[in-house]
Amino acid sequence: MNDKKKKPQKLRARLPRGFVDRAAADIRAVDEMTAKIREVYERYGFDPVETPLFEYTDALGKFLPDADRPNEGVFSLQDDDEQWMSLRYDLTAPLARHVAENFNDIQLPYRTYRAGYVFRNEKPGPGRFRQFMQFDADTVGAAGVQADAEMCMMMADTMEALGIKRGDYVIRVNNRKVLDGVLEAIGLGGEENAGARLNVLRAIDKLDKFGPEGVKLLLGPGRKDESGDFTKGAGLNEEQIAKVLFFIGITDYAASAADLASLVAGTSKGAEGVEELNLIGSLVTSAGYGPDRIKIDPSVVRGLEYYTGPVFEAELQFAVTNEKGEKVVFGSVGGGGRYDGLVSRFMGQPVPATGISIGVSRLMTALKNLGKLGMEEVIAPVVVCVMDRDTESLGKYQQFTQTLRHAGIRAEMYQGNKKNFGDQLKYADRRGSPLAIIQGSSEREAGEVQIKDLIEGKRLSGEIEDNTAWREARVAQVSVPEADLVAKVREMLAAQAEDRVRG
Amino acid sequence: MNDKKKKPQKLRARLPRGFVDRAAADIRAVDEMTAKIREVYERYGFDPVETPLFEYTDALGKFLPDADRPNEGVFSLQDDDEQWMSLRYDLTAPLARHVAENFNDIQLPYRTYRAGYVFRNEKPGPGRFRQFMQFDADTVGAAGVQADAEMCMMMADTMEALGIKRGDYVIRVNNRKVLDGVLEAIGLGGEENAGARLNVLRAIDKLDKFGPEGVKLLLGPGRKDESGDFTKGAGLNEEQIAKVLFFIGITDYAASAADLASLVAGTSKGAEGVEELNLIGSLVTSAGYGPDRIKIDPSVVRGLEYYTGPVFEAELQFAVTNEKGEKVVFGSVGGGGRYDGLVSRFMGQPVPATGISIGVSRLMTALKNLGKLGMEEVIAPVVVCVMDRDTESLGKYQQFTQTLRHAGIRAEMYQGNKKNFGDQLKYADRRGSPLAIIQGSSEREAGEVQIKDLIEGKRLSGEIEDNTAWREARVAQVSVPEADLVAKVREMLAAQAEDRVRG
Repeated sequence: MNDKKKKPQKLRARLPRGFVDRAAADIRAVDEMTAKIREVYERYGFDPVETPLFEYTDALGKFLPDADRPNEGVFSLQDDDEQWMSLRYDLTAPLARHVAENFNDIQLPYRTYRAGYVFRNEKPGPGRFRQFMQFDADTVGAAGVQADAEMCMMMADTMEALGIKRGDYVIRVNNRKVLDGVLEAIGLGGEENAGARLNVLRAIDKLDKFGPEGVKLLLGPGRKDESGDFTKGAGLNEEQIAKVLFFIGITDYAASAADLASLVAGTSKGAEGVEELNLIGSLVTSAGYGPDRIKIDPSVVRGLEYYTGPVFEAELQFAVTNEKGEKVVFGSVGGGGRYDGLVSRFMGQPVPATGISIGVSRLMTALKNLGKLGMEEVIAPVVVCVMDRDTESLGKYQQFTQTLRHAGIRAEMYQGNKKNFGDQLKYADRRGSPLAIIQGSSEREAGEVQIKDLIEGKRLSGEIEDNTAWREARVAQVSVPEADLVAKVREMLAAQAEDRVRG
Repeated sequence: MNDKKKKPQKLRARLPRGFVDRAAADIRAVDEMTAKIREVYERYGFDPVETPLFEYTDALGKFLPDADRPNEGVFSLQDDDEQWMSLRYDLTAPLARHVAENFNDIQLPYRTYRAGYVFRNEKPGPGRFRQFMQFDADTVGAAGVQADAEMCMMMADTMEALGIKRGDYVIRVNNRKVLDGVLEAIGLGGEENAGARLNVLRAIDKLDKFGPEGVKLLLGPGRKDESGDFTKGAGLNEEQIAKVLFFIGITDYAASAADLASLVAGTSKGAEGVEELNLIGSLVTSAGYGPDRIKIDPSVVRGLEYYTGPVFEAELQFAVTNEKGEKVVFGSVGGGGRYDGLVSRFMGQPVPATGISIGVSRLMTALKNLGKLGMEEVIAPVVVCVMDRDTESLGKYQQFTQTLRHAGIRAEMYQGNKKNFGDQLKYADRRGSPLAIIQGSSEREAGEVQIKDLIEGKRLSGEIEDNTAWREARVAQVSVPEADLVAKVREMLAAQAEDRVRG
């Protein structure tokens, strides 16, 4: 008999795959960003509304899992009454449910915004997470493209509110109806060609990745990649391909508008789509938003399967370095469009709607690259050292700490086990604390307290000549009566702040 | 053959059971609250850290579902690698995982805070939701009760920062070790009495509900309720019961401290627990927090199965009206305690920790009752009416709207379908808009714009005599040159603001 006890297996601490913990700097950066975005959305007359993280799976629409794969794309589980629920994968489908459920109490147009986490049950990859934050605004019950034009301007204003310079971003606008018109014009209209249209959309979607030459192959016979893998094409003929490439190749919309109009003339929606694009162009221009900020650009293919009219894409145009060390244009940080079908799935009547979504988590990465975040420094707490551990001394330290806090100064009494003074200073140093408060028995008897400037040491190492006189005027450690603690701490923090400005 | 087509069943829009949508006023109230709580936690020297909403189920600890009931208490699902994941049910267990996973990179004491949604897979009821918000702070790596004392003071400061008057709240403190000492003193120490101890804890937990008489029955033979249902008791004898009732009946801790000390004298942890309570008492007293704010109170039984040392409870003491129309003391809005075992489950070493959790969603209900929220009024947007729908006119309206927005004034151009001017004013009125901007063709030719004061009508109905002169000085509708739009709008909004103050 083996009398060795089985060692209990230790529980392993690990993040679920594709999820991340967020550190202080990132949290503060996101808070700063969402405050700025909220300010813009509010100024545009939108009000907050939020939905829970769960929806019944059937309400989410196109991601509706089949019974065998209830987690395909979304995270789903069955409630105890057997109904399938899913975590929202965006903020639009839940809003559609909210509007339909409360339709009689809602005044249209209904202008709302919301920020929140969304979830994708997908294979995680570098920079691709399964939980991330979006910040949306939607107008429900507005059929006119004035509402779409407003969304574009609001995205432009949002970019600038976040500190992104004009020229570093552009809002690109296309219209699903125009593309439908082009497809109809090349003979791919009607229900029977739905599959063929989808193949064309997927080919167009590769424009950024493979360029016009690659798309041309994908629209035609197919494309072989560098590894030799072959992707079957949409099988269009040369004339058809030329028309599609003309459409997605338009860079100067004004110059090509007449040709585009004649291409889609006579199709059921194409002409209407061109008119809508033109009206959006006029509206934003008269409000002072030129093509450097909002640009009509038929190469935008964002979610064309989902949207029913205008689509928008907010793109950052500056270069960043990706995980592989390559310089790339940062690209999309948000977008949106008109989704007239999403609310009406629940209703007996059509309900037009348009909206935008900013990818907060992704945009934060971009803004970090630009150095546009965390400019407002958060000062680490003043640390009150624990020199003696009798109840009376601890009471004193606690009292100093509370006095500082009540004066609005971040402060903490050292809470660790290390009794050694040097270890406590090391803690304060690693924490980035500006000052340490020290009172041993002799100071306590004298009713005094010492304040140590912890930035001083670091600062001296990076000294600049002509600031010497200023610095010499400061002392690294002072002793003051207990009653002067707050005033002296304020003074020393102010001196450090002035140093930071000079540095 | 039946040739009637089956009508496709319309999708029904409905919230999942136990979840709610949140309206603008509640969202703004929670934002206001979390900003105030964050300010206090920051001042105490805590920094933000966040974890994702999912954890591996085994990392959550005591709610670990068995294979047959993976959703018992928590919402769980299996990832595609078969591992069970759950939505967090609190913010403490995920923090413990975070600390254990990053232990080598973390400097102790580790002082962090976080706000976020947590999920309970429970039967929903009135006021009981399956998703709600908590706002936690924790100190990991601090063994001394100074860290617990700090938590109590921080909760007290948080209550006051939220506008809750001194006297309307109290932070009650107990210590799990003292209760353990009492249980040991009555012969319920040791592993073999774990079940009996749990029965005593559950009986004590009913103090609020059934009073001392009810608890006495539950500690003894059992209790029959009004419907005749019988709950079996813990089976203690009279002497045992008397000691437990003495303990949980202590209201004046100072007066009973000596008796309590002699009751638990000689038990393994009881004396240590009393010492800890005394030290917490001294520390908060020397920092100026008297028993009107932080009170040692052995009747606190919050999560005694979970905590290992001091436990805290933040209670609101004023009366509110519940769903049944009864006046009741609002009760607990948060609490916490020392959980030395939670991180060490993952580690080969003990890791002391203590923390608090504020129930934001619940506290919001309380503050609404107190009228402490939403004092800062959000002004609804100015509505720019759409009188003509040609492109030029729409461009003009858009321009007015953007001009107002860029001047920092909430504004929207009417986006609805209704062309009738009266309908647009009705929209603005229901929206609570302060002003409407109107430009028909004659004003456009004259380069003018009309501004209509929408508050005027409502205001006249509630008139107060001695303000008449002031009001007569204002006009309900003015015509100004387009260039003066912003200045005049500002002036009229300021006049309305002054009216609100007078009103």
